[in-house]
Amino acid sequence: MSQRVKIKALLQSQQTEIDVTVKGWVRTFRNNQFIALNDGSTNNNIQVVVDFENTDAALLKRITTGAAISVTGKLVASLGKGQTVEIKATEIEILGDSDPEKYPLQPKKHSLEFLREIAHLRFRTNTFGAIFRVRNSLAFAVHQFFQERGFVYLHTPVITASDAEGAGETFHVTNFDLDNIPKTDTGEIDFKQDFFGRPTNLTVSGQLEGELGAMALSDVYTFGPTFRAENSNTTRHLAEFWMIEPEVAFNDLADNMDLAEDMLKYVIRYALDKNADDIEFLTQRLQEEEKQKPQNERSEMTLLEKLQFCLNNDFERLTYTEAIDILKESTPNKKKKFQYPVEGWGTDLQSEHERYLVEKHFKKPVILTDYPKEIKAFYMRQNDDGKTVGAMDILFPGIGEIIGGSQREERLDKLEQRMDEMGIPKDELWWYLDTRRFGGCPHSGFGLGFERLVLFVTGMGNIRDVIPFPRFPKNAEF
Amino acid sequence: MSQRVKIKALLQSQQTEIDVTVKGWVRTFRNNQFIALNDGSTNNNIQVVVDFENTDAALLKRITTGAAISVTGKLVASLGKGQTVEIKATEIEILGDSDPEKYPLQPKKHSLEFLREIAHLRFRTNTFGAIFRVRNSLAFAVHQFFQERGFVYLHTPVITASDAEGAGETFHVTNFDLDNIPKTDTGEIDFKQDFFGRPTNLTVSGQLEGELGAMALSDVYTFGPTFRAENSNTTRHLAEFWMIEPEVAFNDLADNMDLAEDMLKYVIRYALDKNADDIEFLTQRLQEEEKQKPQNERSEMTLLEKLQFCLNNDFERLTYTEAIDILKESTPNKKKKFQYPVEGWGTDLQSEHERYLVEKHFKKPVILTDYPKEIKAFYMRQNDDGKTVGAMDILFPGIGEIIGGSQREERLDKLEQRMDEMGIPKDELWWYLDTRRFGGCPHSGFGLGFERLVLFVTGMGNIRDVIPFPRFPKNAEF
Repeated sequence: MSQRVKIKALLQSQQTEIDVTVKGWVRTFRNNQFIALNDGSTNNNIQVVVDFENTDAALLKRITTGAAISVTGKLVASLGKGQTVEIKATEIEILGDSDPEKYPLQPKKHSLEFLREIAHLRFRTNTFGAIFRVRNSLAFAVHQFFQERGFVYLHTPVITASDAEGAGETFHVTNFDLDNIPKTDTGEIDFKQDFFGRPTNLTVSGQLEGELGAMALSDVYTFGPTFRAENSNTTRHLAEFWMIEPEVAFNDLADNMDLAEDMLKYVIRYALDKNADDIEFLTQRLQEEEKQKPQNERSEMTLLEKLQFCLNNDFERLTYTEAIDILKESTPNKKKKFQYPVEGWGTDLQSEHERYLVEKHFKKPVILTDYPKEIKAFYMRQNDDGKTVGAMDILFPGIGEIIGGSQREERLDKLEQRMDEMGIPKDELWWYLDTRRFGGCPHSGFGLGFERLVLFVTGMGNIRDVIPFPRFPKNAEF
Repeated sequence: MSQRVKIKALLQSQQTEIDVTVKGWVRTFRNNQFIALNDGSTNNNIQVVVDFENTDAALLKRITTGAAISVTGKLVASLGKGQTVEIKATEIEILGDSDPEKYPLQPKKHSLEFLREIAHLRFRTNTFGAIFRVRNSLAFAVHQFFQERGFVYLHTPVITASDAEGAGETFHVTNFDLDNIPKTDTGEIDFKQDFFGRPTNLTVSGQLEGELGAMALSDVYTFGPTFRAENSNTTRHLAEFWMIEPEVAFNDLADNMDLAEDMLKYVIRYALDKNADDIEFLTQRLQEEEKQKPQNERSEMTLLEKLQFCLNNDFERLTYTEAIDILKESTPNKKKKFQYPVEGWGTDLQSEHERYLVEKHFKKPVILTDYPKEIKAFYMRQNDDGKTVGAMDILFPGIGEIIGGSQREERLDKLEQRMDEMGIPKDELWWYLDTRRFGGCPHSGFGLGFERLVLFVTGMGNIRDVIPFPRFPKNAEF
C-alpha cells in the first residue's frame, strides 16, 4: 500500500475505504484541516483531510502552498461538493518545504506575463498544467494518426548547410571562437576550419529532406524543431517552434487536403477525449478572460464549441482566385474596414482577410488552393494556367493559417526553371534535384506549426504560453 | 479500383483475382517480363508480370531500376517461389524515369560508405528501408510506452543560454554577421546586440528543464535533438543525435532502473512484433557481414537471438564497486589483455570493461550503480558514504552504455556545495535551484541516446547509418 497512486486514478476509483499513498504538491491548506493536493496527473486536486488535533503543530506549519508532501490514509466518500472521494490522512510527510514568504506562486490569480517570467514554476498552475497536458495529447495523437496509416517518422537534420528557403532568417551554427574567427589569406572567413567545414545554420523546415524519404518510403512525416531568426515580437511567432511535415508520394493536391483535414480532426478529437477536464477548464478560463472585453470583441462560440464545430464541418475548399472575388465584394472591403484593402489578384492575403473568410463568410475552416506562383515557394507544382501553383493553406478561426502545403513540382525542367527565376542555388540542392532525375513522381505534403495547433485547442492568446520555454528576441531564459 | 494499395497490404491479401493499382519504384526488371516493385511499405517486393508481347517496346525500355511506375492489373496467386501473390499487369504508366546509365544505385551490393555519400537515395535500398522502418517503430514505441504510463511529453528548448553541462563542447547559435561582430567600447563581443541578447548554444540535454516539468507534472519525458561539438570521428558519436530523457518525481534509483529496463524491453518487443521481416533481413545481413570476419570475432548470437535474449533476461544489477572487483580479478585484466588495466577504485570504465562485464562475465545486460562522484555530473544524488552518487548506467552487448541516469540531488545545500566544488555557475541555474527551494522532492531520470538503441536493434556497426542524414566533423551534407 505504500506504492504511490496517481491522483487521476484515485479520483476515478470505484473503491473506497482502502489505504492509499499519494504524493504531490500542496495547492492550498484551509483551516489547518483541508489540503488541496495536486500531482500533475489531472487538473483536479484531491482533498486531504488532516486530523489537526492529533498532528504535530510544527508539521502543520510546514504544509504550505507549493510544498511537496507524501500522504498515507484512507480513501473515503466525500461529503464536500465538487468531489466524490477524499483522503483521511493517517500520515503526512514533508518531502520538500516551500517558504510561503518567498514562494512566487501565491494561491491567487497571477497574470500570464508574470508567469512567463517564472516559466520554471508555471507548470504548477491550473492553466499551465492543462495546457501542457493538452499539448502532450496533441503531440501523441499526431504520431498515432500517422502510424495508423503506415507513415514512417523521419528525423530530418536540425543543422543544415542549405539555406535555400530561409534566406536571411536563419540562425548561424558555428564552433568558432567568436572572438577569433580564422580568416583565409584573402581575408574571408575560413569556414573550412569550422566544425562542419562550411557555413551551417538551423533548419527552417525538414520538407526538402522529407521529400527524399518519401521518394523511397512513400509516406513519411517529420516532427521536430524548426527555427526563424525573425525579429518579430508578436503573439504568433517564436524563434524556435515545432513543425509536423508529412510528405506523401503519389498524392495530388486533393489527397493532400484530405490528409490534412483528417489529421486535424483526428488530433482535436483525441484531445477532446483524453483531456475533457483540461479543455473544460480552459473553456471556462477563456470565458472569464473574454468578460474583460467589450461585447463585440467576444467570441460567438466557447472554446469547446469551436473545437466541436471544427470536427462537425467539412472544411470549405475554394481557390485563391475565388477568395479574392469574395473579399473584393465583401462589406468590410467596400466600407474600407480592412487595414489592407483587397484590390486585385496577386497580393498575399493578410490575417484580417483570412479571418473574414473563416469567421464571417463561411463560418468554418477554409482551405484555399492555387495561389499565385509569385507569392509561393519554388518547389510548388506549377498549374497549367502559367500563373498559379498547386498550393493549399488551411485557415482556422482565431488563428488564420494553421497549415501550408502543396503538391510539389516533380518535373525537373519546370523545377529548375523556377529555381533560376527565384535565384535558388541549384548546386546546393543537387540532392533535391536528383530525386527528380531518378524515379521522381507526383507527391504532396504540408507543414503544421505545432504551437499554432496548441494555441487553437487551448484557446490561449499568446504562442509563448503554449511551449514550455519560449524563445523570442532577447529571451533564451531557462 | 484506381485507388493505390500499398504493397505490404497486397502481400498479406487473402483475396486474389481482384483488380488493383500499385505505385512504387522498380528494383529490378528481368527478361522484359518480371518487375520487382517496392513502395517502402515493406522490405518485400511485389512481382509484376508484364505481358511483354502486347506492351509497347518504348515503354518496356523505360522500366528501369529506380523508375517510379504505376501498375494496374489483377492480383493472382503466384507459382514462383518466395511469394504467394503477384500482379498480372494490364496497364503500366511511367511516373518518373531513371536513366540506368546515370542512376547511382545499381542492382548490386554497394558499400555502406558509398551509400553514406548518397544518403538521399539510400532509403531505396533493402538495408536502409529496413533500418528506417525499425527506427520509426522504436520512436513510436517510446512515445506509446510513456503515454500508457501517464507521462507528459515535454519539448525542452534546443537553443539555450546555459552551458552548465556541456562546457566547451557546445555549438554557438548566433544571428551576428560573422564578418562583422559588434563590439563594446571595451572591445568585447556585444552580445546584447545578438538575437537573444546573450550568448546562446545548442542544448546538450533537456534534463534540467525536464526536472522543472517533473516538479509539477510528476512524470515527464523529452524526445528531441541534442548536440555535441566534439571533434570525434568514431562509429559511436554524432554531432546531432536524438535523446529520450524521462524524469519522474518521487522515483528513487531502484524505481528508475525498473522504468529503464521496462522501457527498453517494451520498445524492443514492439519492433520485433511490428518489423519481423525487417529484423529478419537485418539478421541475415549481419550474418553475411560477419562471415568476412575471423571466426573468433564473430558474434555468438545472431541479431534476432540477441534481441530476444535482452527480453528474456532480468538485467544484472550491481554497484560500480562490485564491478571493479570483478574486473580486477578477471582473466583479461590479469593477463594484461585490457588496453586500460583496471587497477583501483575511482577510474571511469572503458568500453572494453563494460563489454567484458556484459558479454563475457554476466552474459546479459548489466546495470551498474553508485559510481564515484568525481566521474559523474553535479546533479546526481550524493550517497551517505560521501564517495559515491546514486547513478545508474545500463550496459548492452556490442554497444556498451546505452542509458545513463541517476537519482537527482534534491537537497539544496548538498547540491549547491557540489556545484561550488565543480565550478558550476549557480547564478546561471537560479531556476534549477528554485525547484529545490520550493517543494523539491526525491526524483530520478535517465537519458537514452536514441541512435544507440537503433544501432543495437538493427545490428548496424556505424551510428552514421541509423540516422537519415548524419552530422559529424566536416559533414553537413543534405
